[in-house]
Amino acid sequence: MRKRYLARKPLDEALRIFLNHPACSRLSPPESIPTWQSLGRITAEPVYAVISSPPYHCAAMDGISLRASDTFGASDANPVRVPPEGYHQIDTGDPIPEGDDAVVMAEEVRELEGGWVELRSAARPWQHVRMAGEDVVATEMILPRGHKIRPVDVSAMLSCGVRSLTVRAKPRVALIPTGDELVSAEEELSTEELYGKVIETNSYMLAGMIEKWGGEPVRFKPVPDDPDAIKEAILKAVGEFDLVAVNAGSSAGREDYVPKVISDLGELLVHGVDIMPGKPVALGVVQDRPVIGVPGYPVSAYVAFEMFVKPLISRMLGIASPRPRIIRALAGRRIASRAGMEEFIRVKLGKVGSKLVLVPIARGAGVISSLVRADGIVRIPSHLEGVDQGQELEVELIREVEEIENTLSIVGSHDMTLDLIGDEMRRRWPEVSVSSAHVGSLAGLVALRRGECHAAGTHLLDEETGEYNVSYVRRLFPDGGIALINLVYRQQGLIVRRGNPKGIRSFEDLRRKDVRFVNRQPGSGTRVLLDYELRKIGIPPDEIDGYENELFTHLAVAAAVKDGVADVGLGISAAAKALDLDFIPVAEERYDLAIPERYLEDRLISRMIETIRSEEFKRRVETLGGYDTRSTGERMF
Amino acid sequence: MRKRYLARKPLDEALRIFLNHPACSRLSPPESIPTWQSLGRITAEPVYAVISSPPYHCAAMDGISLRASDTFGASDANPVRVPPEGYHQIDTGDPIPEGDDAVVMAEEVRELEGGWVELRSAARPWQHVRMAGEDVVATEMILPRGHKIRPVDVSAMLSCGVRSLTVRAKPRVALIPTGDELVSAEEELSTEELYGKVIETNSYMLAGMIEKWGGEPVRFKPVPDDPDAIKEAILKAVGEFDLVAVNAGSSAGREDYVPKVISDLGELLVHGVDIMPGKPVALGVVQDRPVIGVPGYPVSAYVAFEMFVKPLISRMLGIASPRPRIIRALAGRRIASRAGMEEFIRVKLGKVGSKLVLVPIARGAGVISSLVRADGIVRIPSHLEGVDQGQELEVELIREVEEIENTLSIVGSHDMTLDLIGDEMRRRWPEVSVSSAHVGSLAGLVALRRGECHAAGTHLLDEETGEYNVSYVRRLFPDGGIALINLVYRQQGLIVRRGNPKGIRSFEDLRRKDVRFVNRQPGSGTRVLLDYELRKIGIPPDEIDGYENELFTHLAVAAAVKDGVADVGLGISAAAKALDLDFIPVAEERYDLAIPERYLEDRLISRMIETIRSEEFKRRVETLGGYDTRSTGERMF
Repeated sequence: MRKRYLARKPLDEALRIFLNHPACSRLSPPESIPTWQSLGRITAEPVYAVISSPPYHCAAMDGISLRASDTFGASDANPVRVPPEGYHQIDTGDPIPEGDDAVVMAEEVRELEGGWVELRSAARPWQHVRMAGEDVVATEMILPRGHKIRPVDVSAMLSCGVRSLTVRAKPRVALIPTGDELVSAEEELSTEELYGKVIETNSYMLAGMIEKWGGEPVRFKPVPDDPDAIKEAILKAVGEFDLVAVNAGSSAGREDYVPKVISDLGELLVHGVDIMPGKPVALGVVQDRPVIGVPGYPVSAYVAFEMFVKPLISRMLGIASPRPRIIRALAGRRIASRAGMEEFIRVKLGKVGSKLVLVPIARGAGVISSLVRADGIVRIPSHLEGVDQGQELEVELIREVEEIENTLSIVGSHDMTLDLIGDEMRRRWPEVSVSSAHVGSLAGLVALRRGECHAAGTHLLDEETGEYNVSYVRRLFPDGGIALINLVYRQQGLIVRRGNPKGIRSFEDLRRKDVRFVNRQPGSGTRVLLDYELRKIGIPPDEIDGYENELFTHLAVAAAVKDGVADVGLGISAAAKALDLDFIPVAEERYDLAIPERYLEDRLISRMIETIRSEEFKRRVETLGGYDTRSTGERMF
Repeated sequence: MRKRYLARKPLDEALRIFLNHPACSRLSPPESIPTWQSLGRITAEPVYAVISSPPYHCAAMDGISLRASDTFGASDANPVRVPPEGYHQIDTGDPIPEGDDAVVMAEEVRELEGGWVELRSAARPWQHVRMAGEDVVATEMILPRGHKIRPVDVSAMLSCGVRSLTVRAKPRVALIPTGDELVSAEEELSTEELYGKVIETNSYMLAGMIEKWGGEPVRFKPVPDDPDAIKEAILKAVGEFDLVAVNAGSSAGREDYVPKVISDLGELLVHGVDIMPGKPVALGVVQDRPVIGVPGYPVSAYVAFEMFVKPLISRMLGIASPRPRIIRALAGRRIASRAGMEEFIRVKLGKVGSKLVLVPIARGAGVISSLVRADGIVRIPSHLEGVDQGQELEVELIREVEEIENTLSIVGSHDMTLDLIGDEMRRRWPEVSVSSAHVGSLAGLVALRRGECHAAGTHLLDEETGEYNVSYVRRLFPDGGIALINLVYRQQGLIVRRGNPKGIRSFEDLRRKDVRFVNRQPGSGTRVLLDYELRKIGIPPDEIDGYENELFTHLAVAAAVKDGVADVGLGISAAAKALDLDFIPVAEERYDLAIPERYLEDRLISRMIETIRSEEFKRRVETLGGYDTRSTGERMF
């Protein structure tokens, strides 16, 4: 069903083969542009001063200019008086008049009648005079080649009479999406029209990356999955562009035409690289132009561009490839990895106490939100099968260290008010971020114990006492030191499709044969509640269709109901409301934030508590529906 | 002659007064833009998913979709066969057909005759299926408010059906240059026409800074030094812009109109801040719009903008003000500073051995090249009078650490081939920079001994032996360990105006009453040569007019001759040639690079030696004129 054209290669070998090919070793041609339009461009040759700066001797102060020798001997006891014809009024930057060789500051000049002035100290020759060329002498080098022009450089060049300069033309990159299923993101389609289609969005991401690296992207319209159409598009593009990137169609699937097309039209250098995501990348040359087959999944496409296109654009521009900032952090948990593959793991970083801890984000190459949320990327070398918890790893940063240090990390049960906390905090303190990871109540408390986060969101019912959270915290933190701050009381209920077509009323209905249920994962507060209620009324789990179908968030459960994967799920009212579903309340539960007492005075935590205690926050929570804020912000334990 | 309107303020007080004024506390209004045009903009509110991603259950692999239950029990021993109507061909991303609930990878499917397929293992329900909302569920928050949109965010928003979003309008900043002497940088003027004029270049730098910070700059035409004209310009600007910056006219000089104008039109909040450069900044409000009087010197203007405009723009955008990266480095020498002033010292950084050493660059606020060359800025607090050599200081970085670590630092005598070394090295290795500081031969050797640089350029004549450099190196480095690598032999000579109007022929002419000389500083090789030659022929220095007039580089000497400050100076042929002057050769001298032996194998140093030994480099040196490359690259000691 499929064909691989070349053996898969390790990353460094693939890079060597590709970047050393003559088609990838060409500098972008030089072009001359006006200096005032050169911001951000790369010099193609050194820039030399045309005139000196300043171009003539000039005053460095406001005051008067005169001959220094006319003031020799001046003192408090023996002031020297200078007649009107013996000096000139002068402002900063004015040329020194012929014959004068010093400037006296206005403060030191006493004006007398008839235009005479009096001085009480002698002037040194050339005092307060900026000599011609003090800054730069004509013919001096102002900027080296391969320099990215900054605002101050524009100003310096113009001061030195450089009115135009030679920069590298921006490498032009053709971005060609392929796929029958693609529709343009700019086209307005209804949900029905979208069914079976995929919105073409990679080209926007890739175009933005090209721009950032100094190239000029051109996005093509999607090309159908047809070898001839792809051939035609590539042939057209190599005539006009410095680099051609064909997106999707490079995985080893049924519609894997790109490597073959490259092979037919020119030379396929690499097909498949030992990296994950990004494995199916294809690298080749057609008519002396590099052509790259970029995998279709967004994270794969991102990694392939970072690995192969970034260094290529830099090389065309004659600059060093920008490298990510590296920081060291501790693995918050064990990370598995596939031997024989260099894995690029997106991670969240948290500064909890004095430790910088990294936690991997979901790994699917299709999960673009994992890149949006990532603070950095960890590379696990191909010879490892994973790394242990507590191991120190190098992280390539995507966000600034400072942002990460200003990020409050909440791990645990999912609640929609967590986003509101983040938004309200940022409104007050723009430097603050809140990152929330939804792993369920119990896993959140475990993460808190491991020092992976600042706070854990939890709603765990103690089946014996009927009380929330306290007994779990006591068990997990036997030495104490944990405060429970109430965030909200909230309604849990059965989420069903609009109009409740299956007529579901209570937990009893879950055992009906025509009802498919969708569950939450063990350790989540909602699961604990479900199991408690089922036991109470004596329904064995194996009588429920879909009990083993587990999802990780309220919204995912609601989405499964909305899409018909299930008829009913247990979740919070806000999730039902968000997706326009019906909701049958079954219980009110308490959702608390567990916070180590030693953090309560911490800047981020105390700001968070201040925020959730504010009227503004409570008002916003109540508009979500299904919440009660009667104890919001109170310490419960 | 002058007037100060308010007492000068410390920086933190000035910032507090200015930024806390209601006119500076307003958020820029929100505006709705298409998502595909949002790169680099700042979200004004959180962005929520409109549709789920993926919007429906879809295949995560190429292969076939089927009902998992139809495959239960399949094994090598008991393969299961599925008829054509029992499965669907499916590609990655395709929706799962109604009724199917699993995908089997193409590799695991054996095709049989008649469209039947055979499977040798059972499929789990939902295997290789991306559930609707796996990435993002509709209504989930994708981006928080106050977020700067990156390429990946654009793609993520489009994937979630977000076709437009609300961002902060770019704060509009009016940049109004003032000064009768200003001419536009875009106007083409001859040197004669430029005399007495100043090219207006600050507005280009300030505009670039505003753009970088997310604002929208508009550069005005220069306004004359006339209070009414300035008033009119400000009044017009406050009606249309969010911030008005008036450049120059804010120092306490004769043409100091801006603070008074602000005061007349509205409220002057601050006039004068205890920072250097940047002291004369004026901050005020006119018609509820912030107006800032920016000092005229480029470095002052830069500092004033960094201090006051950057945080203001950030506040308007609702984001944290970007902070410079900080690094710690050792002061390579004592740095004097004025008590009562917070001084912003531009510094070069060098990684020499394992130490990161900082060396201050010339401090004049008019010296824009000091900003161009700077690696970072050190702030000396106002309560200090300076810092000692060896003290560890915080440096706000302007360049990346990596660039600094790839910078070869050569301190010492000035020679124009040093720029050629830098250019040739960068041509070969784009990541490499060469920084050369021109302090004279002896000071260069002293800097080398202090560990401030990698190499010192030196041409010091031993008057006893007639040999160059060796005896100086022996004396300064009694323990040895220094190699001398020849860079060039070069002609020293008398530099005179074109056509030699004073008929100067030899050193004898320097004692003539009608001849003004310009000298080099003590410790420079050229000064040593001069003093040696003068002693040889018995001319006492005090008989030479201008002997005490000392400049620091060959080019500065040539410029002084060109501009008529002096009739003659001693310097190298290349400097005369560069400024189109006549040159009377008087000596050939040897210019070497002194390099610690322990650095010879260092990557940067060995690349430098490889470069100067190349034919390409020697060819470029010889086209400069006045050089001999017979020993270039050879070790002399």
